[in-house]
Amino acid sequence: MNNFTFYSPTEFVFGKDTEKNVGELCQQYGASRIMIVYGGGSVVRSGLLDRIKKSLDEAKLVYCELSGVQPNPVDTKVYEGLELAREFKPDFMLPVGGGSVIDTAKTIAAGFYYEGDFWDFYCGKAKPVNALPIGVVLTIPAAGSEGSGNAVITNTKSHVKNGLRMPKLLRPKFAIMNPELTMTLPAWQTASGITDMMAHILERYLSNTPDVQIGDRLAEGMLLAIMEEAEKVMRNPQDYEARANIMWSGTIAHNDTCSLGRQEDWNSHAMEHEISAEYNVTHGAGLAVIFPAFLTYASKHNPAKVAQLAYRVLGVTESGDIAADALEGAKRLKAWLHDVLGMPVSFAQLGVDNPDLELLNTRLHRLKGDVMQGYMPLDAEATMEIYKLCL
Amino acid sequence: MNNFTFYSPTEFVFGKDTEKNVGELCQQYGASRIMIVYGGGSVVRSGLLDRIKKSLDEAKLVYCELSGVQPNPVDTKVYEGLELAREFKPDFMLPVGGGSVIDTAKTIAAGFYYEGDFWDFYCGKAKPVNALPIGVVLTIPAAGSEGSGNAVITNTKSHVKNGLRMPKLLRPKFAIMNPELTMTLPAWQTASGITDMMAHILERYLSNTPDVQIGDRLAEGMLLAIMEEAEKVMRNPQDYEARANIMWSGTIAHNDTCSLGRQEDWNSHAMEHEISAEYNVTHGAGLAVIFPAFLTYASKHNPAKVAQLAYRVLGVTESGDIAADALEGAKRLKAWLHDVLGMPVSFAQLGVDNPDLELLNTRLHRLKGDVMQGYMPLDAEATMEIYKLCL
Repeated sequence: MNNFTFYSPTEFVFGKDTEKNVGELCQQYGASRIMIVYGGGSVVRSGLLDRIKKSLDEAKLVYCELSGVQPNPVDTKVYEGLELAREFKPDFMLPVGGGSVIDTAKTIAAGFYYEGDFWDFYCGKAKPVNALPIGVVLTIPAAGSEGSGNAVITNTKSHVKNGLRMPKLLRPKFAIMNPELTMTLPAWQTASGITDMMAHILERYLSNTPDVQIGDRLAEGMLLAIMEEAEKVMRNPQDYEARANIMWSGTIAHNDTCSLGRQEDWNSHAMEHEISAEYNVTHGAGLAVIFPAFLTYASKHNPAKVAQLAYRVLGVTESGDIAADALEGAKRLKAWLHDVLGMPVSFAQLGVDNPDLELLNTRLHRLKGDVMQGYMPLDAEATMEIYKLCL
Repeated sequence: MNNFTFYSPTEFVFGKDTEKNVGELCQQYGASRIMIVYGGGSVVRSGLLDRIKKSLDEAKLVYCELSGVQPNPVDTKVYEGLELAREFKPDFMLPVGGGSVIDTAKTIAAGFYYEGDFWDFYCGKAKPVNALPIGVVLTIPAAGSEGSGNAVITNTKSHVKNGLRMPKLLRPKFAIMNPELTMTLPAWQTASGITDMMAHILERYLSNTPDVQIGDRLAEGMLLAIMEEAEKVMRNPQDYEARANIMWSGTIAHNDTCSLGRQEDWNSHAMEHEISAEYNVTHGAGLAVIFPAFLTYASKHNPAKVAQLAYRVLGVTESGDIAADALEGAKRLKAWLHDVLGMPVSFAQLGVDNPDLELLNTRLHRLKGDVMQGYMPLDAEATMEIYKLCL
């Protein structure tokens, strides 16, 4: 086990009607001028935005609104938000939505104190030293951004989708999580979110660091719970209990609960980011295509951890041939994603009939270097093999 | 799943040599005048105390010392510490040790701002409204106090051992956790600590709240990891990796990671507190006696969760008779505690040949009421039956 720091200071307020506390929580964390950030559509239609404004009004808090954040959030919305923020001068950011909305708010929070172009943070040219505090009302369990210090933004000019990690600055002060708010999510979005959280766990789980039993067992426990509850929620979207289990799982999948002193991977995420940046597909759906391919490749080149996953989570019985068992695990996960979640597991199913694999692969290695280190070293030939396994 | 708040803001700094950061961490959290609290013995002999003072000196921090805290910490040491604190006027508490040392420091931290008798907090007469901030250097993985907002103190006059829970006030700001510091712990103390952390998980796991899959799976994962790593550490106390897994498990066993929206039990802890308050036995050893008896009783009166534990953690195969399977689980856990950890599993093995069960039972219900609610309602007859199962 490697040395590590675990720091998850967010106050998670979880359960029915918890959004009613938003005004009080904002006050507790020192807010007086709040910038609400949201996508549009369901947050407005459902009356959630009105309930939130009512709670802020009751707490005598002033607010402005930034709406229209899209999935795979882009730099242009951040620039728009920064302009609004410099005018309104908020002292607190309040994203209401899922990962795209939260990541947009986080980036505005950090960019607010920076005189240069915020993209400097995302291309490694500068590091944020200060950020506005953030509180979250979560409506989509998926990205885990409500409990993480990370954000991901796509540059609309260069098509680069990149991430920023600043745990001490960007972890939200509080996150309000009412599973009822997720009960009207369409099946597609529910399933994409579940895929995303499972990928967050697997990116941490696929590691060569030895002797991380406690992290492994927690990761396996999360995956078992998610798969069990996902089957329920896909059958009955109104199942509050299953929604609640899924919602909390999405948070701890990404707040480092199962990271714990190991080298993580994240190469599948990097490979998917190229797909969603180019073809604007749902991130979770892209992961459903990439992950089984990645595991298939891994079962040939480094089967140990994939086999452990197969035995402990996917019900594979040890045959004595670890590579074959790992491959069987990869197959079962792929079948589960397709059959239970209804996810695409190939480019064609994703709606990308003629993917430009050369383009994706070239951009990937331009961003990540010739050889991506991780659970397996991946050069351009290796990642091309994985992309081809997605056909 | 019930509504819940999860709040674990402690910054855990985990791994080799991390105690060297103590001065810097104290500074980061605003300390200038520090009260170091410790037991004595190994903290001094090992040179740890000197290393800590060196780090504080380098950070130009002023400190005083309170030493001599004993296992099952008592009110008299708290009064001594409060006297010292009122003289020295610390702005930060730094316990160096295990649960007893941390709980003593927490109680001084809260008592410092209270004009009355601190025991008022423990008998429900008053609630702390302020407390000195706390940082921890952990040397004994067991109580989980480094990541919890709880403290337990014994009243030497009344023999009442009682707990205080104030998550927002008493959770440490940081906890330094170097598994190397635990490698010289005697087998008895190691095993008692492991029993304590397993009990912390079971107190949360034994619940009638339905649909808490994610919490259940996390709890089961922790227990599987602890049992696997405990076997290694009992065979080879110098196994750093096993020590590291055990140390982190002790923290998350008690920082609510596996609580998550359910009614918890804690009646086994209450029953044990009567034993250790009267006979001054090690808390973990008392739990090794109580827990199998509690599970044996439960397998007759509410077997569902005990059977789930038996299937998922203790390797019991489903026979169709849930009560029999639960009982088999209780037996296996008892045998494991005895055979692998070398723990006592009866009053006689605990060194208490003629326990005054009437006295324990009377005090228990005087403190907890006629019927203790939880996984099973326990009246005086029920708890007497459990105490008798410990003979």
